[in-house]
Amino acid sequence: MTRRNSIPDIGRLLVSCPDKPGIIAAVASFLHEQGANIVESDQYSTDPEGGAFFLRTVFHRAGLSAIRPDVERRFAAEVGVPFSMSWNFTAAGVPKRAAIMVSRYDHCLLDLLWRARRLELDLDIGLVISNHPDLAEQVRDFGVPFVHIPVTADSKPDAERRQIELLRANFDLIILARYMQILSAQFLAAVGVPVINIHHSFLPAFAGAAPYARARERGVKLIGATAHYATEDLDEGPIIEQDVIRVTHRNSAEELERQGADVERMVLARAVQWHCEDRVLRHGAHTVVF
Amino acid sequence: MTRRNSIPDIGRLLVSCPDKPGIIAAVASFLHEQGANIVESDQYSTDPEGGAFFLRTVFHRAGLSAIRPDVERRFAAEVGVPFSMSWNFTAAGVPKRAAIMVSRYDHCLLDLLWRARRLELDLDIGLVISNHPDLAEQVRDFGVPFVHIPVTADSKPDAERRQIELLRANFDLIILARYMQILSAQFLAAVGVPVINIHHSFLPAFAGAAPYARARERGVKLIGATAHYATEDLDEGPIIEQDVIRVTHRNSAEELERQGADVERMVLARAVQWHCEDRVLRHGAHTVVF
Amino acid sequence: MTRRNSIPDIGRLLVSCPDKPGIIAAVASFLHEQGANIVESDQYSTDPEGGAFFLRTVFHRAGLSAIRPDVERRFAAEVGVPFSMSWNFTAAGVPKRAAIMVSRYDHCLLDLLWRARRLELDLDIGLVISNHPDLAEQVRDFGVPFVHIPVTADSKPDAERRQIELLRANFDLIILARYMQILSAQFLAAVGVPVINIHHSFLPAFAGAAPYARARERGVKLIGATAHYATEDLDEGPIIEQDVIRVTHRNSAEELERQGADVERMVLARAVQWHCEDRVLRHGAHTVVF
Amino acid sequence: MTRRNSIPDIGRLLVSCPDKPGIIAAVASFLHEQGANIVESDQYSTDPEGGAFFLRTVFHRAGLSAIRPDVERRFAAEVGVPFSMSWNFTAAGVPKRAAIMVSRYDHCLLDLLWRARRLELDLDIGLVISNHPDLAEQVRDFGVPFVHIPVTADSKPDAERRQIELLRANFDLIILARYMQILSAQFLAAVGVPVINIHHSFLPAFAGAAPYARARERGVKLIGATAHYATEDLDEGPIIEQDVIRVTHRNSAEELERQGADVERMVLARAVQWHCEDRVLRHGAHTVVF
Repeated sequence: MTRRNSIPDIGRLLVSCPDKPGIIAAVASFLHEQGANIVESDQYSTDPEGGAFFLRTVFHRAGLSAIRPDVERRFAAEVGVPFSMSWNFTAAGVPKRAAIMVSRYDHCLLDLLWRARRLELDLDIGLVISNHPDLAEQVRDFGVPFVHIPVTADSKPDAERRQIELLRANFDLIILARYMQILSAQFLAAVGVPVINIHHSFLPAFAGAAPYARARERGVKLIGATAHYATEDLDEGPIIEQDVIRVTHRNSAEELERQGADVERMVLARAVQWHCEDRVLRHGAHTVVF
Repeated sequence: MTRRNSIPDIGRLLVSCPDKPGIIAAVASFLHEQGANIVESDQYSTDPEGGAFFLRTVFHRAGLSAIRPDVERRFAAEVGVPFSMSWNFTAAGVPKRAAIMVSRYDHCLLDLLWRARRLELDLDIGLVISNHPDLAEQVRDFGVPFVHIPVTADSKPDAERRQIELLRANFDLIILARYMQILSAQFLAAVGVPVINIHHSFLPAFAGAAPYARARERGVKLIGATAHYATEDLDEGPIIEQDVIRVTHRNSAEELERQGADVERMVLARAVQWHCEDRVLRHGAHTVVF
Repeated sequence: MTRRNSIPDIGRLLVSCPDKPGIIAAVASFLHEQGANIVESDQYSTDPEGGAFFLRTVFHRAGLSAIRPDVERRFAAEVGVPFSMSWNFTAAGVPKRAAIMVSRYDHCLLDLLWRARRLELDLDIGLVISNHPDLAEQVRDFGVPFVHIPVTADSKPDAERRQIELLRANFDLIILARYMQILSAQFLAAVGVPVINIHHSFLPAFAGAAPYARARERGVKLIGATAHYATEDLDEGPIIEQDVIRVTHRNSAEELERQGADVERMVLARAVQWHCEDRVLRHGAHTVVF
Repeated sequence: MTRRNSIPDIGRLLVSCPDKPGIIAAVASFLHEQGANIVESDQYSTDPEGGAFFLRTVFHRAGLSAIRPDVERRFAAEVGVPFSMSWNFTAAGVPKRAAIMVSRYDHCLLDLLWRARRLELDLDIGLVISNHPDLAEQVRDFGVPFVHIPVTADSKPDAERRQIELLRANFDLIILARYMQILSAQFLAAVGVPVINIHHSFLPAFAGAAPYARARERGVKLIGATAHYATEDLDEGPIIEQDVIRVTHRNSAEELERQGADVERMVLARAVQWHCEDRVLRHGAHTVVF
C-alpha cells in the first residue's frame, strides 16, 4: 500500500456533548484565537433544547503540526472540559490503519483493496485475517499480509485470542468484509477500535439462512445492503450507510446475490471512506453522518 | 368519474399453468387462426423444466367484441383445458371498478382520486369507505360517494358485514389506501376480489407502533413503501411494487413520515395501474409483474 | 389557504460573504451575546482559502420578535458590515407568500395546492396566473384566486405589464409550474423576487419541441426533471434539485410524459420547500442547498 | 481467463423483422416441432400495426448442438425468409470473445477484468489495447495480453491499421473502457463487430473539456453515465444502459469524478453483460433491451 501523507496544516475537530448555549461561539472563538481558519463545519443538535450536540470542524492553521499538542492542551482546559465534551483532534488526509476480516466472499475485500491501492480511500490496509485460506494469493498480490486463522465451534475462543493479538493496538479500524463468524462481546471490547460490518438488507427483512432465495420467494423488488458499526447484537449496530438496487421476478436467486454483491461493495466503500474522513459520529443506537 | 371506453378490438389474454412444451405455440397459433395479431407478449417460467408458466398477451382483432364469446369458448376447448390452464380474457383500456377503504391519512386516497380524474389510471373509483368521517367532503368533491362505517372492537363484525354488503359483486378491486384496521379472513373471502394494500417499509423492518420514530432512532438512511395483495397475514401478501427515498439524521420523525407519504402514494399508484393493466399475476407468495 | 404562524422565538440567519478567518466566531459570539442558542448551523466555503463563504444558522431566543429589530441593527454594525456580508434574518415557519404561473399542464400546480393545503409546505399560495382559462375552477376550489391573462406574440408586453401589476410587492416567490411562455429579462427584474422554474431533463438533453418523443427515439433509460431559479437564459438558471425515474423501450412517449410528470411534481415540491425553509443560497451559476 | 462452457442444450433465437400477423405462432410452432421447449421469451413491437417486431427466445432442446445446423437451415427456409427476418441463433452461456481498448483511466478496465475472472460476466477478455503503456502490468496480472499502440495526430491512420489487424475476425465484441481517442468510421466498419462505449452523462449535458468541473459550476445534483454502441457520431450511438448518483455542492470536482467512475463501471458492466446474454437488439438510433 502506498502511504499518503497528511494534508499539511489541516486539522479536524470532532465534538459531542450535552447541548447548551454558547458551544459554537466557544469553539469558533478558540480556533480563531489560535490563528486557525474554519474551512468546513457541520453541527447537529438532536433537539431544539436539552438534546445532544455534535460538531465536525475542519480548519487550516499554518504550522499546525508543531503547535498541535499545545492547541489540544489549551482546548481541553478552555473549552472541552467546561462544556463536558468528548472531543478528538485528527489530522486531515492521514489514512486510518485498517485490518480486514473476511471469509470466502471476495467482492467487498477486493473492492476495498483496489480502492485503497488507487488512493481513493483514506485507508491503509495492513492485514487481512480469514477463517478460510482461499483468498490468500489475491490479497498478497496487493502487497498486504494475509493470515489464516481457522475457526470451529471448539477453537473459537482460541481463534479470537489470536485475532486479538494481531489486531489490538495495531489498527485504527477493523472492517468485516463479509466475515461470516459472530464476534463475541469480549472480542469487540478487546480490540478497542471501531468495527464496521456490511450485510444484505431487504424489505421486509429475512433473517436466517439463504436470504436471497427467500427474498426471491417473497418477490421483493429491491435488494439492499447496510453498513453499520458492529455491536454485540450482530446486524443491529448503528447504521452508517444503506442503498438498494431494483430487481424483478425474472432474476434468479443467484442473480439477486450478484446484484446484492454490487450494492454491498458500494455501500461498504462509502461507509469506510466516511469513517476515515471522520464524518461519522456515534450516538446511542444511531449515527450522525456529516 | 369520467368513464373511459375500452380500446376497440384490443384484447388481453392472461394464462398461468404448469409449464410444458408447446404452450406458446398453441396460444400463438390459436390467436393467429382467429385473425388476431399479437401486439405485446410477455412470458415467464419459474424453472427451465417442470415449473410454473405465466403469459400475458395483448392482441388486436378487428371486430373483437362481437366474436369474443365465441373465441373464449373455443380457447377453453382447444387450449385452456388441454394445457390445464387458468386463463382470463379482458378488454384493454376498460377501467377496473374500484372501492377505496381509508382511515384518516389522506395522501394515498387523494393521489388516486386525482390520478383517476386525470384518466392517468385505468381505474373507476365508485366508492370510498372510511372508519372515520374526516375525509367525506374531500372525497365527495371528486363526485365519489363516501360512506362512514365506524369500527370499534365490539362493532367490528357488524362493520365488516356492512362493508361486504356494499362491496360484494359491485367492484373488481378494493384498495386499502392506509386503512388502519385489520381485515378478517372472512372479509377477504367474502369480497372475492383482489385487495391491494400499501404500507411503509424500512431496512431493517420495524413492526409495531410509531415506526418512523423507531426508524429515526436506528438512523435508517432509506424510507420505503411496499404495495402488496392483502392476505390473512397482514403486511405479508405477494409484493407488487416497492420503492425507497433517501433520508438523513437531520430529518425529524415527522419529516420521515412526510417523505414516506410521497413514496407510499407513488408506489401505490404504480401498483394499482399495473393491476388495472392486468400486468400482475399471482403465484403463491409472490407476483409476476409483466 | 390556512395560514400558519411562525415558530415563536426561532430565527434564521443567512450569510454570504468573502471567506476570511473569524467569520463563524464572530457570528456565533454575537448570537451568544444576544442570549440566542444555535439550534442548527450549516456552513460552506467554496475554497480552502480566498473563496466565498455561506452560512445558514437557526437559533432560539426567548422573546425574539420583540428584540429582533434591535438585534438586526446591532448585527449590521458589529458583524455584517465589518465582514462585507450579505445577510438576512427570517422568522422560522413563516410561509412564503407565493404566486404560481401555469399554462395547461395541471400536475405541478395541483400538487403544490394540495401540499400547501395539507400544510406540508411553508407556502401560502395567494394567486394563480395562467395564459389559459382551463384550470380556473380547480384552482378556485382550493380557495385561491385565479386570473386569466392571455398571451399572444402581440399582447406579450401588455400581458407582462398586467402580470407585474399583480405580482410586484405582493409576493415573496413566484413559481412557474409548467408556464410555457418565455419571460423577459424586464419581467424578472420588475417582479424583484426569486422565480422557481421546473422542466424535464434527460441524458442527453433534447432541446426544442416534443422532447419525450425524441427521448424515446434515442432510447433513454432515465427520465428526469430539474428545478432551478429562472434567469434570462431560460432553463439555464442555478439548479436547486434534480431527480430521475427509470423507463424502458416499452414505454410510449405518452407514458414517458406521465412518468416525467411525477418526477416534475416531486422535484418542484422539494425545491419549493427548501426555498421556503431558506435552505437555498445562490452563488453565481449555482446554488448552495443546506 | 477461465473459459466457461456453454449451457448444454440451451439455445437463443434473436429475431427482428417487419411486424405482421403470425410471427410468434410461426416461431413457436417451429420450435415446438423441433422438440424444443421455450424457457424464456420476450417480444416487442414498436407500433400496434405496421411497426418493427423484435423477439428473443431462449429454448431447451436435448441434443441441441448436434442438430443445430439442421435446425438453422430449416428455420431459414420455413420462417426466417418467408417473414423477411434478420435472425441469429446463439448458444446460451458461451462467453463473447472481447477486446478492450483503454487509455489511462483504469476503473472500467479493472472492473471488467475482475468480473470476468469471477465468471460474473459471459465474457472472455482476450486482449487489451491501449494508447498508453501505464496499465500493462495490471492487465497482464490477470493473464490477459496487453498491447501498447501509441496514437498521435500523425500516426492515427497507422495505429488504426495495427488495431484492426489485431481485432478483425478475432473478437465478437470490442469494449471502449474509457478509450479517449475518436475512432474513424473506417475503423468501425473494418472491425465489423459491435463496439460498446461508456461515457459520463449529466443533466444538462456538458460537451467538451473538464466536464466534471463544469458540472460542479452549474451545481448539478446528479452525476450519470451512459453505455451505448459506438457509431460514427461519437457519444451518440444507441443507448444500452444509464444510471446516476446523487451529489451535492460540497463535492469537489475530484469527488464528482470519483463518484462518476463508480457509476461508469456499474453501467458498463451491466451493458456488457446484457450484450453478452444477447439481450440487446439494435433498432435505428435506439435499442430494445430484453
